[in-house]
Amino acid sequence: MRKGELTRERIIAAAAPIFNQHGYEGTSIHALMEATGLEKGGIYRHFSNKEELAAEAFRFSLNQIRKIRTDDLEQISGSLARLHYVIERFTETPSPIAGGCPLMNAAIDCDDGNPLIRDLAAQGLRQWRNRIAKIAEDGIAAGEISSTADPRRIANVIISALEGALMLARMERTRTPLCDVRVTLSDWLDSLGASKTKPTTPRVREKKRAVRAHPTT
Amino acid sequence: MRKGELTRERIIAAAAPIFNQHGYEGTSIHALMEATGLEKGGIYRHFSNKEELAAEAFRFSLNQIRKIRTDDLEQISGSLARLHYVIERFTETPSPIAGGCPLMNAAIDCDDGNPLIRDLAAQGLRQWRNRIAKIAEDGIAAGEISSTADPRRIANVIISALEGALMLARMERTRTPLCDVRVTLSDWLDSLGASKTKPTTPRVREKKRAVRAHPTT
Repeated sequence: MRKGELTRERIIAAAAPIFNQHGYEGTSIHALMEATGLEKGGIYRHFSNKEELAAEAFRFSLNQIRKIRTDDLEQISGSLARLHYVIERFTETPSPIAGGCPLMNAAIDCDDGNPLIRDLAAQGLRQWRNRIAKIAEDGIAAGEISSTADPRRIANVIISALEGALMLARMERTRTPLCDVRVTLSDWLDSLGASKTKPTTPRVREKKRAVRAHPTT
Repeated sequence: MRKGELTRERIIAAAAPIFNQHGYEGTSIHALMEATGLEKGGIYRHFSNKEELAAEAFRFSLNQIRKIRTDDLEQISGSLARLHYVIERFTETPSPIAGGCPLMNAAIDCDDGNPLIRDLAAQGLRQWRNRIAKIAEDGIAAGEISSTADPRRIANVIISALEGALMLARMERTRTPLCDVRVTLSDWLDSLGASKTKPTTPRVREKKRAVRAHPTT
């Protein structure tokens, strides 16, 4: 049983980059066999069908990017500093799953892809947006962000600009769009600061250093 | 000859949405036969191979979105008004090719897609960015946009935010991300105005009406 679970986990981790690169339809059993080193029967002993394996692989991918994009976030104090950090992490840390951002891939795949993956992707996007919107909401409540700002809009703009820049960067194989979007979003975030607290807006670099120096805070 | 050319054009127009929806690898000859109403031989009499047909179909798709996204642009006076118009057109006009933005689809397809399509997509993106950057450059030269603004950065941010919002909108089947990005980009563009000309920045609605009233200007 224990060994079976380990094998299942290993198959999911090996299948995740394959599905992420080739999409649901484009992933062949041959590619899955090659990635896992198992025969077809060895793979499907652990999953009822391709859909179940694809869904587990997608959950795994989403979890990996969620970790890398929001790791340490709770340890940063200040809503603006947290939003700066979200942007910094996204633009500086490559996707840990080969094939780029799983959310973007699922979005493109969604018309002719699998409905279950589509639902999981929409859910992953919703959670990400809610997380960013909640940071903005907290910032407004604390008087750090202007009360005229709209948390949902802030979240949609940040996610759209980041995902779009990633798309451009991938297309042209250059980081320039990510850098351009990062600089502009950072300036824009600072402009959202409530005027009385604006001068004291902490810089994200300083915050990061503080987090590293005191990882238990 | 004339009839042959017409048939070729008809095949390209029918194949464009098929390739745009399913990608290069995912497009089957069966789907192309169904879309064109022709047999395999009837299609490939006009194209040396799948790659040539896919490239022509992609050029056709890019041309369609270029038209819809920048139509009438030259008739609008003022750089900021033109940039507002770019954003308005993108967020309000659906893709004329089924399957969404061909650039976005090609970007996702690029890892495992066709190198020729990839090159065409990168070229289409470059042209689009150059066009937007040129508008910003003209605005700076005319003293309408602040001289501290960076035309390439403006273009990258506009394209990234728009394409990213389209991705979110497609994933969630709601226009909200497009509206959120439009409002924010518009405010941001206004903030780029050179201070002395800022109060006179024309509103895009007024400009559009003017264009429609005087289509020959």
